[in-house]
Amino acid sequence: MQDLLEIVERLFAGDRGALARLISWAENRDSRFPAALGQIYPRVGRAWRIGITGPPGAGKSSLTNGLVQAVRARDETIAVLAIDPSSPFTGGALLGDRIRMEERTQDKGVYIRSMAQRESHGGLARASSDACDVMDAFGFDRIVVETVGVGQAEYDVMGAVDTVVVVLCPGAGDGIQAMKAGLLEVADVLCVNKSDLDGADRLILDLEDALRLRRPRDPAAAGAGAMTPPVVATSAHEAEGLDDLLEAIDSHRRHLERGEVEDLEKIRRGKRIAQVRRVVGERLEEELWSSSGHTATVDSLLEKSITPYDVAEEILGSVLGVSPKTP
Amino acid sequence: MQDLLEIVERLFAGDRGALARLISWAENRDSRFPAALGQIYPRVGRAWRIGITGPPGAGKSSLTNGLVQAVRARDETIAVLAIDPSSPFTGGALLGDRIRMEERTQDKGVYIRSMAQRESHGGLARASSDACDVMDAFGFDRIVVETVGVGQAEYDVMGAVDTVVVVLCPGAGDGIQAMKAGLLEVADVLCVNKSDLDGADRLILDLEDALRLRRPRDPAAAGAGAMTPPVVATSAHEAEGLDDLLEAIDSHRRHLERGEVEDLEKIRRGKRIAQVRRVVGERLEEELWSSSGHTATVDSLLEKSITPYDVAEEILGSVLGVSPKTP
Repeated sequence: MQDLLEIVERLFAGDRGALARLISWAENRDSRFPAALGQIYPRVGRAWRIGITGPPGAGKSSLTNGLVQAVRARDETIAVLAIDPSSPFTGGALLGDRIRMEERTQDKGVYIRSMAQRESHGGLARASSDACDVMDAFGFDRIVVETVGVGQAEYDVMGAVDTVVVVLCPGAGDGIQAMKAGLLEVADVLCVNKSDLDGADRLILDLEDALRLRRPRDPAAAGAGAMTPPVVATSAHEAEGLDDLLEAIDSHRRHLERGEVEDLEKIRRGKRIAQVRRVVGERLEEELWSSSGHTATVDSLLEKSITPYDVAEEILGSVLGVSPKTP
Repeated sequence: MQDLLEIVERLFAGDRGALARLISWAENRDSRFPAALGQIYPRVGRAWRIGITGPPGAGKSSLTNGLVQAVRARDETIAVLAIDPSSPFTGGALLGDRIRMEERTQDKGVYIRSMAQRESHGGLARASSDACDVMDAFGFDRIVVETVGVGQAEYDVMGAVDTVVVVLCPGAGDGIQAMKAGLLEVADVLCVNKSDLDGADRLILDLEDALRLRRPRDPAAAGAGAMTPPVVATSAHEAEGLDDLLEAIDSHRRHLERGEVEDLEKIRRGKRIAQVRRVVGERLEEELWSSSGHTATVDSLLEKSITPYDVAEEILGSVLGVSPKTP
């Protein structure tokens, strides 16, 4: 406990070692993390959290890099959490962009951290939200969470940020593919990157058309206050459009802060509830499969004639005292 | 129960209405599904399950379509489960390829079904595995599960099939991006689609290079029997390479059936255990958040100074009698 208080104190004093350590605790589900979060929680809630997602190859890393520069030019501080796949092959972060970004860590106003994708589903969203809380308590003005892919786990991660930027580029990851992957619904801001490439103008028009047809995310919010996501053209390599992107993010922020659709506190409370559910899910997984020997039960029960449902009910019955569900 | 036995009987008699209904039960977590699965379970395990995954735009739907033709040319039967995003925008399946494929359902040897992506993480893998069990019990020789994206949920879906085909194409979704997304590790067969495009030869060489460096999925299996995934070039639109792809899949099947690395029964048992865990996870979610009023507890507990962990421990304590974790 002494250790813990000391680390929290160091975090508040601006010590990056403490910052890194607390994020590692969150990432590794260290048993000390919950108590540490309790200590720093009163300072959580000031930073604006931006999610960057989109198909592989859209240039998300370069764009994040550009966004860091644009934020720094305004003299604000920024932390980046890059979600890398838990790839035994790549061993996590390995990319040129990431390495170039990490050179930036000479700058005291920037912090870059990568986090491996987790095996468990809710795990990634839980850990990234916790890491954002730590970065937020440290005092960064903005936090960017950048995902690699566009799957369910990434959607959950995006569910925990304030403004979601969906990045697309002309070519293979085009507008129809984005709709196919359900990307448009999660976007607060759409960014067409590599806007110097052929097809960019067409993609922008297609997206604007599609957005006009888009149903609002929350049916109850359909009406006056509902905001259609702006489409911003950028070329991260040419450092073009980055201020426009930042302005679109800030405009979304003001929109939420004015509470035209829903109260910001209420939105953030919803995100906290989702986080509680993730924590409960992880802890239950842990209770069931790490410590209590249910794995052995499954193994012994699982014969050809017994379905996974039968085995599951057996386990649930013993844990929760739930009576088996019968048709 | 009478209903249930009748439906199962109809399934065994080759009735597609019964097939569709049982899959809907699996998809919608109908309370009758577990008992129905118990009835059909003895007939599960004969079909070979093929997963098709890869980045959006790689041509997975066209390739699946081509694979269906190649399988039918051999006079085998095939069922396709297409995982569509649960998109309120697209409303699920809408694509030209899918519509073209569904025309094929005139053919009694083919069954096409789409399934919406679930909100819950384990839900998609659980439901798709259940649907495969139903298709398997119906009597199809092969089952193809095709995903839209390449995220965590899709990985889980791929974890439930026998042979995973990762589809890539030259261009934006290139080899480096595939490594970045950790796609190579899950592949049993790599397929370079749109092989008539520029850059296809280069992509094949890059992938072959990368695969030579790939660590085997299971460290214990490193050695004589470990199989390097073959790279197959296809052009689904030109109907080229589809037999090669089918042959690569069959070769992987023979490899597993010979048990050179691990016993096929043992592998499939591992997949069943994973399914048990998903069912337990879903049932716990249900117990906790639908019926027992914990949502209200969370809402009342969640004040600024109480972290999601504190709230989670409170809930776990009341459900499991677990004592709070303290540092």
